[in-house]
Amino acid sequence: MKIIRSIKGMSSFSQTQHTRGKTIGFVATMGALHQGHLSLVHKAHKDNDIVVVSIFVNPIQFGPKEDYRRYPRNLKRDAQLCEKVGTDVIFYPDARQMYSTNYKTCVEVCDLSDVLCGKFRPGHFKGVATVVTKLFNIVRPDIAYFGRKDAQQAIIIKKMVEDLNIPIRIKVMPTVREKDGLAMSSRNAYLNKEERQDALVLYQALILAKNLIQHGNTSPSDIIRKMRGLINKKKSACIQYISVVNPEDLQPVDKIRDRVLIALSVWIGKTRLIDNMVIGP
Amino acid sequence: MKIIRSIKGMSSFSQTQHTRGKTIGFVATMGALHQGHLSLVHKAHKDNDIVVVSIFVNPIQFGPKEDYRRYPRNLKRDAQLCEKVGTDVIFYPDARQMYSTNYKTCVEVCDLSDVLCGKFRPGHFKGVATVVTKLFNIVRPDIAYFGRKDAQQAIIIKKMVEDLNIPIRIKVMPTVREKDGLAMSSRNAYLNKEERQDALVLYQALILAKNLIQHGNTSPSDIIRKMRGLINKKKSACIQYISVVNPEDLQPVDKIRDRVLIALSVWIGKTRLIDNMVIGP
Repeated sequence: MKIIRSIKGMSSFSQTQHTRGKTIGFVATMGALHQGHLSLVHKAHKDNDIVVVSIFVNPIQFGPKEDYRRYPRNLKRDAQLCEKVGTDVIFYPDARQMYSTNYKTCVEVCDLSDVLCGKFRPGHFKGVATVVTKLFNIVRPDIAYFGRKDAQQAIIIKKMVEDLNIPIRIKVMPTVREKDGLAMSSRNAYLNKEERQDALVLYQALILAKNLIQHGNTSPSDIIRKMRGLINKKKSACIQYISVVNPEDLQPVDKIRDRVLIALSVWIGKTRLIDNMVIGP
Repeated sequence: MKIIRSIKGMSSFSQTQHTRGKTIGFVATMGALHQGHLSLVHKAHKDNDIVVVSIFVNPIQFGPKEDYRRYPRNLKRDAQLCEKVGTDVIFYPDARQMYSTNYKTCVEVCDLSDVLCGKFRPGHFKGVATVVTKLFNIVRPDIAYFGRKDAQQAIIIKKMVEDLNIPIRIKVMPTVREKDGLAMSSRNAYLNKEERQDALVLYQALILAKNLIQHGNTSPSDIIRKMRGLINKKKSACIQYISVVNPEDLQPVDKIRDRVLIALSVWIGKTRLIDNMVIGP
């Protein structure tokens, strides 16, 4: 496995592979890898000749009060994990190379970016769309893999690829969970023991919603109220939002007739966690 | 020469060429071709195995009161001109194909887009950057050619390509002028006989500025005042702006020490014309 740090080196590696007729599968990450990421790499390895994993903590997707500086970074550990699941190249650029001092360009997917998490993280999805466009142009994969856990991100990237005619296929893979149901996340590392217990309530609230819907409840407001009731029992939990939306356009649903995306963001102590589920009646 | 109307058809043509090891030169146009466009095609033909010319009047770069509807369209004439100068493919998509009803994505180059013409055409350069990104992703050229006449557009596209790591080389070619000096433009067709005479004043004002600078005048405000004086003598002329800026960042220059870009936009009757020159002391 190679670690490539320069944009030029990465581009020319990819070009060589394409000239040889090899296909490239790509997983964009911010490092701090867990089984969720590795399931994407595993799938990329199954589908393609070459697998590239980028590790880049993208400054422009963090708000000024967010955890850019303290976001976990551990290249050595990440590299070991990548190698085990069939990664050929880790692309590991630094921020100065990705964003020159007179950097000026952004990519934005309107409407989808200012709801759900976007409402609470202004500029976040613009930062994501921009860095993913850059990574796609550098790595030039045939297929790129994203996790369903970041549902809004996956929907935005699929829309961006469609709108901008980017010649890359996007595959969105299922959320990987701990045995007790907690969605895998690099930010779970911030949780202390008690918080780790409380964090389970995001998943439990989604399961509650699923049961309600599958027993005929069609009222998003009622479902949200019941989810809130469950979550608010946990001392360390503070709900940022719970939304029941159309999984295509992310607009709120009045009455559940078809599949809906239920997405939520909850602070557990000082850690903001998200989770979601697509549920049909 | 082929005319390809579908995005899919264009993509797969380009992919086939790349697989065969052929290089693609690309000229993006809105049709109504003149010698300025054809000089770009000619250069593309010299540099590359295959030349693709797109003809697409891009709705999202026109303001609501601008000339989108009446912009000259004549595919037959354009196709004849293209064929003569070595075009292999005209890419001729329609607007519904380029922008689906739920289109949401845009590309923006900040700072460079809201000065000069951008100040008077809000959203124009966002529309340009977006459509050029789309065309680049569909056509996947090795080299794309733009005219210096649209100086701000060329600078914005070069910056966008650099910032987003788009693997395409941009070549900016000199403005082509009529014998008397008027910069070639599709919009010159809107001018009546008298206006056509008056329109020459844009070039004359630039030549005046060039003479002043080369005789030691270093004052942008003085040069602009003298250019205004000359242009205002023409009955049909109404100045939108005259600016003396740094050719890299398009910021106004206080004193001329180095090469400057002098750019101007003047209404001649109901037709908005632009011209520019890079001038060194």
